[in-house]
Amino acid sequence: MIRVAILGYGNIGKAAEQAIHAAPDMELAGIYHHDDCLECIAADAVLLCTPTREVPKFAAIMAAKGICTVDSFDIHGQIYGLREQLTPLTKANQTVSIISAGWDPGTDSMVRALLLAMAPKGITYTNFGPGRSMGHSVAAKAIEGVKNALSMTIPLGTGVHRRMVYIELEDGADFKTVEAKLLKDDYFAHDETHVIAVESVDALNNVAHGVHLERSGVSGETHNQRFEFNMTINNPALTGQVMVSCARAAVRMKARGEYGAKTMIELRPIDMLPGETEELIKSIV
Amino acid sequence: MIRVAILGYGNIGKAAEQAIHAAPDMELAGIYHHDDCLECIAADAVLLCTPTREVPKFAAIMAAKGICTVDSFDIHGQIYGLREQLTPLTKANQTVSIISAGWDPGTDSMVRALLLAMAPKGITYTNFGPGRSMGHSVAAKAIEGVKNALSMTIPLGTGVHRRMVYIELEDGADFKTVEAKLLKDDYFAHDETHVIAVESVDALNNVAHGVHLERSGVSGETHNQRFEFNMTINNPALTGQVMVSCARAAVRMKARGEYGAKTMIELRPIDMLPGETEELIKSIV
Repeated sequence: MIRVAILGYGNIGKAAEQAIHAAPDMELAGIYHHDDCLECIAADAVLLCTPTREVPKFAAIMAAKGICTVDSFDIHGQIYGLREQLTPLTKANQTVSIISAGWDPGTDSMVRALLLAMAPKGITYTNFGPGRSMGHSVAAKAIEGVKNALSMTIPLGTGVHRRMVYIELEDGADFKTVEAKLLKDDYFAHDETHVIAVESVDALNNVAHGVHLERSGVSGETHNQRFEFNMTINNPALTGQVMVSCARAAVRMKARGEYGAKTMIELRPIDMLPGETEELIKSIV
Repeated sequence: MIRVAILGYGNIGKAAEQAIHAAPDMELAGIYHHDDCLECIAADAVLLCTPTREVPKFAAIMAAKGICTVDSFDIHGQIYGLREQLTPLTKANQTVSIISAGWDPGTDSMVRALLLAMAPKGITYTNFGPGRSMGHSVAAKAIEGVKNALSMTIPLGTGVHRRMVYIELEDGADFKTVEAKLLKDDYFAHDETHVIAVESVDALNNVAHGVHLERSGVSGETHNQRFEFNMTINNPALTGQVMVSCARAAVRMKARGEYGAKTMIELRPIDMLPGETEELIKSIV
């Protein structure tokens, strides 16, 4: 049995707990909070279900202990930097960190890589939503004066999105000041963003999300090769499940001596699945 | 530059040639026919674009020479057996064989594995077509009395398919005898199959194909997670391209000492793509 611990017990931590219980080859090694004794964690892998900006710190602590980690770090422009930071640490301590393991970045990244292998020339559009972005909601909530926030992602086609950000203000906070700060945040600065003050964010909350990923490309010299990947999902449930599947891959990679920090496009799909190679090949390939 | 040779010059061999020319990191190391001097092949990888039933023989010859191979062996029930046959040979000769590298088996297999990692419980349906099955057409053409054949795959939903087999008879061949033989062939015995005699198979030919792969499943304890992967493609162009992308992966795996015979669910998506890890992660993940 693979012993998996959870650090951080919000939406994703709770979903990951359910995915660990549902896995035939895993057992829960404990649920930890940010201020718990991290030195006390004993597990084969730890799922870092913390806010994304705290991931680098906790990933480094766990790597130093030689424990595998999985995170869903979702700041696209900083993923390679995180990998670079964790690579020497994980190699020195003979362990594996799987970074940015969710659905985007994550499984969508694997689909994008696969479509590039199938039709190297062309354009891929990743259209998200409508749905709540957890990363953006947490980022909005972190703005001074914001009591609670919900950031909805609205697909405008060809990979362009609108952000509808519903905020509940702290008592005495000034809407215009909060709005200006939010619009400058790196999470929101690059998209059309609307900020709306509401009485209750809870009344709007719904963790449904979706993606419509499409590519029209060229295989060899043949044009008009068309592909699409669609999903409509419960967002934290999928993220928690993908992290758990990646924990399995991390433990297997560590057992083979393939140490390092890896993104999901560097994983073998079979490593994420329970069971033996023979059965998996016979049932899936 | 990766030097890639082609063995077999039918539809797939010709498409593979175009994909090699389009690849920024490859050069064509020669095009060979079944009766050429196979001992003369000098290449980093050989694409086995032969009829599927000849793949095991040629893969074994190349493995013994220490040359990487990629094939699109498509008899689902015999894939694991081929892997078992080639594993000791490839390991002994420190080389890599990627088997069943097309779109199904192949990239569809990778999507199925990915969907299992995202929602471990549930049902995946792979619906093919409408389109010509190259494997089935070759199998039909191999029946005694058949001059030319086209086998169309018609999706009936929930992974059930009809085979519409258009055959041009040899002079003097008896339709009923040919039909009976064809219906007993392992390629056709498990599906609803209709055999139709036509004047000209060429007049019907069209290499368009498609897939509609769908899964409704459970992530953790959350049901109603819905996924679909669709494509409409030129079949040999995609198969040739996937084989070429897999040749790149094979050569990289060999360089890392990861010898053996592998299916596509055992490949890292990034290994199929040209370019450096850093650029690929920054642009795809």
